[in-house]
Amino acid sequence: MREGDNVIVFENKPSVRCWSAVVGKKESEGPLAEHFDLVIDDILAGQESWELAESQFQRTSIGLLLKKSGFKSQDIDIIFAGDLLNQCSGTGYCIRDFEIPFSGVYGACSTSVLSVINAAIGVNAGQFDNAIAGTSSHFCSAEKQFRQPLEYGGQRTPTSQWTVTGAASVLVTSDKNPEYPKIEKAIIGKIVDKGVTDPNNMGAAMAPAAAQTIADFLKDTQTLPEDYDMILSGDLGKIGSKLLYEILENEFGINIRNVHDDAGMMIYYIDEQDVHSGGSGCACCGSVLCSKILNDLRYGKLKRVLVVATGALLSSISTLQGETIPSVAHGILLTGEGSVN
Amino acid sequence: MREGDNVIVFENKPSVRCWSAVVGKKESEGPLAEHFDLVIDDILAGQESWELAESQFQRTSIGLLLKKSGFKSQDIDIIFAGDLLNQCSGTGYCIRDFEIPFSGVYGACSTSVLSVINAAIGVNAGQFDNAIAGTSSHFCSAEKQFRQPLEYGGQRTPTSQWTVTGAASVLVTSDKNPEYPKIEKAIIGKIVDKGVTDPNNMGAAMAPAAAQTIADFLKDTQTLPEDYDMILSGDLGKIGSKLLYEILENEFGINIRNVHDDAGMMIYYIDEQDVHSGGSGCACCGSVLCSKILNDLRYGKLKRVLVVATGALLSSISTLQGETIPSVAHGILLTGEGSVN
Repeated sequence: MREGDNVIVFENKPSVRCWSAVVGKKESEGPLAEHFDLVIDDILAGQESWELAESQFQRTSIGLLLKKSGFKSQDIDIIFAGDLLNQCSGTGYCIRDFEIPFSGVYGACSTSVLSVINAAIGVNAGQFDNAIAGTSSHFCSAEKQFRQPLEYGGQRTPTSQWTVTGAASVLVTSDKNPEYPKIEKAIIGKIVDKGVTDPNNMGAAMAPAAAQTIADFLKDTQTLPEDYDMILSGDLGKIGSKLLYEILENEFGINIRNVHDDAGMMIYYIDEQDVHSGGSGCACCGSVLCSKILNDLRYGKLKRVLVVATGALLSSISTLQGETIPSVAHGILLTGEGSVN
Repeated sequence: MREGDNVIVFENKPSVRCWSAVVGKKESEGPLAEHFDLVIDDILAGQESWELAESQFQRTSIGLLLKKSGFKSQDIDIIFAGDLLNQCSGTGYCIRDFEIPFSGVYGACSTSVLSVINAAIGVNAGQFDNAIAGTSSHFCSAEKQFRQPLEYGGQRTPTSQWTVTGAASVLVTSDKNPEYPKIEKAIIGKIVDKGVTDPNNMGAAMAPAAAQTIADFLKDTQTLPEDYDMILSGDLGKIGSKLLYEILENEFGINIRNVHDDAGMMIYYIDEQDVHSGGSGCACCGSVLCSKILNDLRYGKLKRVLVVATGALLSSISTLQGETIPSVAHGILLTGEGSVN
């Protein structure tokens, strides 16, 4: 079912039956420490490369998800997952170890929510009973790939964001238990490119896409920001969030300041942890969603949350070729009745 | 609806309403020349880089698809697309020019079929009326990224395959017109990795995944190879196809020789065009599917085709790190009643 031009309505309200977030040491020193399932202190996660370490974070998150759910690999109909590494190799080398049908997703840092939307479409339609959606990112593999080798010791610019080391996954099911948070609606974003070329200012590149998706969602559902307990953006950081407010107010006449938070600003103590504009990476929105947000929906602290994950669709080659940065933002509406106990 | 453990059944049988394949000069000199919609002789397609050229091929294919269908961008609910370039940038920089909600897909060379499956799931469920599935690849951008800069003039090994320069797209709709080919079933593959490490032997790396997916599909649907007019594999080439026969016969007791063809062997005159083991790349299976195969389904020459696209989920980094190559294969069952005229 559809609502307006852009919104997908899930009339069967797929459940988020469980979720897991596995993060690194720096993330465990941030404000959300108590909400994560597991912390891997070793940035290499016992592996021989940053890339394999990222796979290991994702492998651990999915393993934990299965353990929490009581399901085995063969109970899962499909996994939708992806990451930021070239050819989504963090994901490929992880999923190889699970005998689960694998549908690869690429949405840059919006992959967390895009994977959930794909899973929800299939579960809502009855094609899948149990679908996993997952993603990962790693500070060191991302810096190496998109910016500079860490050994170079380059100075980070004030607008830069810190890629979250971690992985997050959710189990989307057709289970009707009212205690589980529900996926009620979704929106797949269009690409927006306002001409930003600075790969060290992802917030500015992605804010217009987030604004467009939020405005489209509110318009199509005929709702106002105050109809939500929270509108969570993915990883705009301090600079991108400010731009988001300005674009929404000036171009769309929408003020979300009272209900907005940003995963990139929630996951670190921004000033104390030296992350400049905030967190980023696929695991930024993913691990915030799969910890505090879903916990709060599960236990009644939040009832209605619009999560809009943002992605910058650049590559290191496109940057060197002087291209601007196309961005996209995908959203899901999560609701929770909270625990009946 | 599901059949067996792995097969997705589309009870509403989404239509492939139209399709387009745009290819380069070398492909236009192969056996399928007459079936392609458009040939772009200039390998740069008027752009300044191989990467932008790949985007231009994809942009041309989608533009042509819209033109053939008589639809405008705003009539399209969603586009599922991806490619082989880092961060799927061939796709990102193409879709930027269309105001269509964009869901990124990564399946390496299996992306053509994986995109179609994603589109079919949503259309079958009534979430989308009109969904595009697309992909692209380019010989020069692929060689540069995965192997060596062309300027290096490296010798290609006998097992290597030639990445197809081109782009292909289909329009999947809820239209019930019996003349359009229908998507009846699908299978999302599991990752298979038999330990191949040679990035110049993709056929060997991917054949086990193709075998597993074909065997699973036949088992779950309780059908035999002779129930199909054709079982088309994506881009196994000469070496991979031979291995496919051996694995299917020795491990599963299945003989597909009489009905099998491989897009990588169909698209070029293998011996005359110096492509060694055959064609490969996202546009290999994509452009064969979106030319001869769908034409033949449309006009009654083929009635029942199982298309199994294969993907090797490696990256250039994973190869340098000595990793083996995880592979995957996704399938769709296409049927056609042919033209009533």
